[in-house]
Amino acid sequence: MAQPRCRSVLITGCSRGIGLGLVRGLAASDPPPEVVFATCRYPDKAQELQQLSKQYSNIKLLQLDVVCENSIKKVVKEVEEIVGDKGLNCLINNAGINVLASLEDVTAETMLTIYETNTVAQLMVTKAFLPLLRKAAQLSTGMGCHRAAIINMSSLAASMQLVQANEMFLKVYPYRIAKTALNMITRCLAADLKSDGILCISLHPGWVQTDMGGNMAPLQVQEAIPGILSVLDRLSEKENGSFLDWQGETLPW
Amino acid sequence: MAQPRCRSVLITGCSRGIGLGLVRGLAASDPPPEVVFATCRYPDKAQELQQLSKQYSNIKLLQLDVVCENSIKKVVKEVEEIVGDKGLNCLINNAGINVLASLEDVTAETMLTIYETNTVAQLMVTKAFLPLLRKAAQLSTGMGCHRAAIINMSSLAASMQLVQANEMFLKVYPYRIAKTALNMITRCLAADLKSDGILCISLHPGWVQTDMGGNMAPLQVQEAIPGILSVLDRLSEKENGSFLDWQGETLPW
Repeated sequence: MAQPRCRSVLITGCSRGIGLGLVRGLAASDPPPEVVFATCRYPDKAQELQQLSKQYSNIKLLQLDVVCENSIKKVVKEVEEIVGDKGLNCLINNAGINVLASLEDVTAETMLTIYETNTVAQLMVTKAFLPLLRKAAQLSTGMGCHRAAIINMSSLAASMQLVQANEMFLKVYPYRIAKTALNMITRCLAADLKSDGILCISLHPGWVQTDMGGNMAPLQVQEAIPGILSVLDRLSEKENGSFLDWQGETLPW
Repeated sequence: MAQPRCRSVLITGCSRGIGLGLVRGLAASDPPPEVVFATCRYPDKAQELQQLSKQYSNIKLLQLDVVCENSIKKVVKEVEEIVGDKGLNCLINNAGINVLASLEDVTAETMLTIYETNTVAQLMVTKAFLPLLRKAAQLSTGMGCHRAAIINMSSLAASMQLVQANEMFLKVYPYRIAKTALNMITRCLAADLKSDGILCISLHPGWVQTDMGGNMAPLQVQEAIPGILSVLDRLSEKENGSFLDWQGETLPW
């Protein structure tokens, strides 16, 4: 039986890369969500996203700086005005930054900046949307994106078990450490919000050729997106609190 | 065959609790290290530690604020003047703080403060002592505290696998998330420093009745310390990059 429909999705960091790819993939899916909230820091500069939102009437382009409390408050209000009592079905915490920093050159400042944007912001954005996620959860049953879900964009580089096998990732200390912490947020939210019917997972979107992924990445955005969307589509209670890759495989912590 | 001796140990956060217990246990061990560097933020106020350092001539009491770059630099210099070319055998990153914060009341500020003290500081202190740890490593073989080792004090609450089984820990979001991140630091250091002969582990010291552990904790400091010291004593290459508890059991990430 097909899952009930996911009415509304909000994605952070949509100006490019995987965020932009997700907006395009979701807006064009069949059946599409009623509304895809595509948020980014500088909508005025996000030309591809602007083009896309003209092409698809279900895309709502909104400004959001995930490390700014007031910006988060404002966007929650804007979303609430549109979704009303239906709430928000799916929040995709995709925004993130990276810097190159090996053991030799990692600094306290870089560690804190990356943690603020890649870990703390995800928790704060999620907290702010909890009332809308809870509203959506009350209108449905089961678990999944059709009801209420939080998707934290993580990384294979955050797997502690696989550190030895991925020594190249040793060049991104602050990033991988912050993503590991984000995985713990996923675990805590999954435990805390289960009784509300809100699902939470960490997702490794594949190592994709983006500004962040770089040229060496083996995947194109357009290859990874269908996989990611298919994983999101099939989420159920079984996956709550898990760490999945873009092909639906479970990754070890 | 008995392990070769650990000549020097430095411990952070020694004014009370587990840090103080470790100083006492190490200073009185047989044979004891030549020198136990007992560091804390406010040596003037650490009366028990002062008493102890009068009792045992192998304790050197030094001031260290782990989140202050200059304080770290100063203490490295002081230690270097004492250990000289023998370097430092064992660094125990024990200093840490905690606050009560569930999902409902966790703030960005608390997340950043706890991360700075419980995660970033451990990495920065370790980086600063790397030259002395490398010196010690060059003088010995094998792996363990007799040669060169970094012990990161972690927590059972940082195990992602065991989140479901420890829902009471959901009241300490910033702490457990930061300790999970510290576990990733352990993994990265273990991979990065293996070729230098420097071992790194995460250690859950037991849930101990201290100012941090609270009254509900099932263990007294004096019960946990012999276990911890025995675990440290037996460390070898096999344990590099692992997450152990005070009884030597491996914990899942």
